[in-house]
Amino acid sequence: MSDLLKSIPMPAELRQMSRSEQKNVAKAVRHFLLETVSRTGGHLSSCLGAVELTVALHAVFNTPDDRLVWDVGHQAYPHKILTGRGARFPQLRIRDGLSGFLKRDESPYDSFGAGHSSTSISAGLGMAVAARLEHKSRQVVAIIGDGAMTAGLAYEALNNGGVLDADLLVVLNDNEMSISPNVGAVSRYLTRILSGRLYNTVREGAGQALSFVPPLRELARKAEEGVKGLVTPGALFEEMGFHYFGPIDGHDLDALIPTLENLKKIRGPRLLHVITKKGKGYGPAELDPCGYHGVTPFNRSDGRMAKKSAGAPSYTQVFGDWLCEKGAAEKHLVAITPAMREGSGLVRFEQLFPERYFDVGIAEQHAVTFAAGLACDGIHPVVAIYSTFLQRAYDQLLHDVAIQNLPVLFAIDRAGLVGADGATHQGAFDIAYARCIPNLVIMAPKDEQEMRDMLNTGFAWQGPALVRYPRDNGLGVALDRDLSRQIPVGKAEILRKGKDLAILAFGTRAAAAMAAGETLDATVVNMRFVKPLDTELLTSLAQTHRAFLTVEEGARMGGAGSAVAEFLLNEGVVVPMRLLGLPDIFIEQGDAGRWLADLGLDAAGIEKSGRELLTLLAPSPVRA
Amino acid sequence: MSDLLKSIPMPAELRQMSRSEQKNVAKAVRHFLLETVSRTGGHLSSCLGAVELTVALHAVFNTPDDRLVWDVGHQAYPHKILTGRGARFPQLRIRDGLSGFLKRDESPYDSFGAGHSSTSISAGLGMAVAARLEHKSRQVVAIIGDGAMTAGLAYEALNNGGVLDADLLVVLNDNEMSISPNVGAVSRYLTRILSGRLYNTVREGAGQALSFVPPLRELARKAEEGVKGLVTPGALFEEMGFHYFGPIDGHDLDALIPTLENLKKIRGPRLLHVITKKGKGYGPAELDPCGYHGVTPFNRSDGRMAKKSAGAPSYTQVFGDWLCEKGAAEKHLVAITPAMREGSGLVRFEQLFPERYFDVGIAEQHAVTFAAGLACDGIHPVVAIYSTFLQRAYDQLLHDVAIQNLPVLFAIDRAGLVGADGATHQGAFDIAYARCIPNLVIMAPKDEQEMRDMLNTGFAWQGPALVRYPRDNGLGVALDRDLSRQIPVGKAEILRKGKDLAILAFGTRAAAAMAAGETLDATVVNMRFVKPLDTELLTSLAQTHRAFLTVEEGARMGGAGSAVAEFLLNEGVVVPMRLLGLPDIFIEQGDAGRWLADLGLDAAGIEKSGRELLTLLAPSPVRA
Repeated sequence: MSDLLKSIPMPAELRQMSRSEQKNVAKAVRHFLLETVSRTGGHLSSCLGAVELTVALHAVFNTPDDRLVWDVGHQAYPHKILTGRGARFPQLRIRDGLSGFLKRDESPYDSFGAGHSSTSISAGLGMAVAARLEHKSRQVVAIIGDGAMTAGLAYEALNNGGVLDADLLVVLNDNEMSISPNVGAVSRYLTRILSGRLYNTVREGAGQALSFVPPLRELARKAEEGVKGLVTPGALFEEMGFHYFGPIDGHDLDALIPTLENLKKIRGPRLLHVITKKGKGYGPAELDPCGYHGVTPFNRSDGRMAKKSAGAPSYTQVFGDWLCEKGAAEKHLVAITPAMREGSGLVRFEQLFPERYFDVGIAEQHAVTFAAGLACDGIHPVVAIYSTFLQRAYDQLLHDVAIQNLPVLFAIDRAGLVGADGATHQGAFDIAYARCIPNLVIMAPKDEQEMRDMLNTGFAWQGPALVRYPRDNGLGVALDRDLSRQIPVGKAEILRKGKDLAILAFGTRAAAAMAAGETLDATVVNMRFVKPLDTELLTSLAQTHRAFLTVEEGARMGGAGSAVAEFLLNEGVVVPMRLLGLPDIFIEQGDAGRWLADLGLDAAGIEKSGRELLTLLAPSPVRA
Repeated sequence: MSDLLKSIPMPAELRQMSRSEQKNVAKAVRHFLLETVSRTGGHLSSCLGAVELTVALHAVFNTPDDRLVWDVGHQAYPHKILTGRGARFPQLRIRDGLSGFLKRDESPYDSFGAGHSSTSISAGLGMAVAARLEHKSRQVVAIIGDGAMTAGLAYEALNNGGVLDADLLVVLNDNEMSISPNVGAVSRYLTRILSGRLYNTVREGAGQALSFVPPLRELARKAEEGVKGLVTPGALFEEMGFHYFGPIDGHDLDALIPTLENLKKIRGPRLLHVITKKGKGYGPAELDPCGYHGVTPFNRSDGRMAKKSAGAPSYTQVFGDWLCEKGAAEKHLVAITPAMREGSGLVRFEQLFPERYFDVGIAEQHAVTFAAGLACDGIHPVVAIYSTFLQRAYDQLLHDVAIQNLPVLFAIDRAGLVGADGATHQGAFDIAYARCIPNLVIMAPKDEQEMRDMLNTGFAWQGPALVRYPRDNGLGVALDRDLSRQIPVGKAEILRKGKDLAILAFGTRAAAAMAAGETLDATVVNMRFVKPLDTELLTSLAQTHRAFLTVEEGARMGGAGSAVAEFLLNEGVVVPMRLLGLPDIFIEQGDAGRWLADLGLDAAGIEKSGRELLTLLAPSPVRA
């Protein structure tokens, strides 16, 4: 490993090397990548596909002064390896270790942080305009995948970039995949470019950047209906004001380097279309790029991944099963995902009900407004989406769904801490950002049975309903699969009756709250509903308890605990109270359990807070 | 007026009419529109431009069973007039009156509510898919303006629609304007279509929908750099999987009706490009379509609008002036607007500093990530955006700006109640949705001088800062234009010292709070900062006062009052407290002052709440 690292230079050194030495660097990077990710796990397929492109970019551009703006970060490991961070790979994606994404404070080579998709053209355009205003001659290169190109943000940036005439090079890294196979008209368009025998390879040599523009296809008005468009490679990008170059082979340094050298000499908005293979250079990943997108540690010789511990099924799996069962019973149910088929547990639903399954691409905004349209006309959509990605559809949730009070069920996965993905992906904010929106019903289950019951409840509700659940295994409770099981909306559940202190738990912190409640002999309530709150129970508990402790796995600012405080205060009920939740910081990557313990949200932490509260207690609750 | 209305039929009747009768209906609609909007004010130019298109759509499609999905709603008055709502126009945009936008519960003809832009293709696609799943033969037509086409949501929907093969007709109503002149590459592209002598007119007759496909232009590889795209009309939409038809004259019923009749017979995703003139048929509006986009009552004969009352300058104007002054002093300041030059007060800044002014189109997401990119490289961007539209860039605010703690100043206009625009446009949520995001500084001024000082403070702050101000005139205070005036971050201001009760006012409710405080002899605090709170002052006030009353013009759920409650409770300080703010409903259109009074947020309401709180008071604050 360390020998391998020695053969990998820093960018300045790479730029001094001969082409054949650079090719050896690419080999070493790929080797090191496989070696290390097979031990640590992480994002593999996209990184394998980006090795040569990364080498070429650092070989041609004067990084870090020239700006490389990577998108998402799933493909960023080669960039990290080439910029002096190889030795830190054993600590990849663990607490205080190397981030799995781009991060400005990790390296000057990371010019823009990433995590969510499709930001690179916008950010790169900003940097290119900044360079112009500051009279800097630096180059800016935004790299974006074909999957990320389905997002509206990328389009908005192209639309703006095409007229600003900024010196921005967009490299479209086209592997015909997002995480799952890419979908949508733009993807089909890119495929048409390739299938049109337009794909050629450039050999090295100066002055050729312009020479590889493929011969224009014989233009034929498509007979079919007389109105089909003309296919010329890159016309779509040309119409957007970008000069289109390519496609070229993204694994061939002899094509990449001279092309980039030439593109460097051209000004204005340019787009280079590079074709790569997700999983390139490792057989098992080439054969199954989805399976090796994000990996657990695996055996390099046969590709077999470490078996996941045989614990209880994950919430994601329980959701996926529920969806299939409910879909069989309810013909008006459709499922919508913004390009997260595997992550959201929709693989089986798609197989069973292909006509009611909609992967809309990386397009969270459209996913939600599309759902609203369906809901207007007799269909009940289930939008399966991560907490962090629903941020992208905030206005659509509010303006298109909630104002119209339309029946759309949101299955919000990865709510709470997510572990290795870190700050950009924490499901920390959904309670706070959704709670202020009128008409929403917001639920958080204590276990996987309750999740099923809440999904049934939300689906029966004639308005928008959200069920938030964590990136975690369930508690392993035996499941009653009865699809008619529901929970009365706005009704909490008393798990334990105790005295003095009432612990009000929202969602999966209920088990830890229960353990703390046992020790403290406190009342423990599984609140179930962030909205509407069980105000009747709160009022009654306030009369019989001397203090409240709220617990949630979400931002404390504006969270569920605040909802309890708001209600009680405005009722004139003054109860000493503590609010436990995620503090007002962006929580970095690391084991979720350890983070929860550090933040005082495990059983011991809850117990400690409860004990402190009790010792400070006023003689009795005050009624103002 | 009522005579005019008699000549305007309902859609079913319209469909039975002869073409010449239909033309007379169009004339009557335009006449009625001018007559009524000149008295009430409202959105004029876009409506004038959409008269014939609206008549044609209702004449051809079987509304309301066939779905017309309008976008934004700025062009929806002719649709309202044609669907039985003419008599209600005297109550346009006032409390309990006719909405200025589309609204599902106002009419069965309003198939999808609107207000924010660019939702119609997504929603229409949902309805088209619903029709397929439900085996209904209904037609779905989404109408969208060229301005709205710059938004990512529209692109995401096209990208999805192009592969779903749903029976959706998109009508692109192209008037080369959004509210201001439209910008961006797509706009330039649409203009190229027109300038390419491809614009033709279809005369009536069956079977011609396909015949007006313009002859393909002689294809010439553009010499310039050898790589320009080929221009064929609509290629961009064709590449996205939509059949493109047009452009046709949107004011000629003899073109529109037969074309739509023919398009009705075709299946799959279709796009009809219609050219209209914003302000059509009314001279002053044709000459100045921006000026007549949203109008106050005006004299029809000369077009002169009622003078705005000569009160104090609006917050928008004060912001615009500050921006010009600050821009002159700070060369690294740039201003960004998502297509709201006039509304955000940026007209003069654009004239003075064109190279530092960026109208990115209706593209809130890109506006914010573009700002983040600029902020990485030495530029300090000011994003001027309405509270309600920042919802569209929520993830970009969180993920691209806040996580990276980048210096971007957000000037948030229309924060609080907006009056006539109603539920879709209320600036009700920004405090709640932004407060949970770490790293943000959130300010709310009590008057226009403080707004200037806060803008100076936010611009000097080396991280993201938000200043929220209302759609209102300032208080008329004399302005000290010193650009070095700042406010210590996190420091509140005691406006009045009183006893027992402390009224904590956030933002523009400070004056009303002050009036109430005088009557009650209460302490009144201008809190200034929603985040960070002045916790020192709160702690000290809790020791000397028996109750707190918080007041804000924003959602109470998760708002600034909650922030105060969270802090005090977690400090173990139990103070009886009431939180005043906007209730958990979508607040409909109507005079903001009247709404504030009805919601108990005027001086009388604050006084009343304060008095109630004082009478219920516990003997003394309790320390837990």
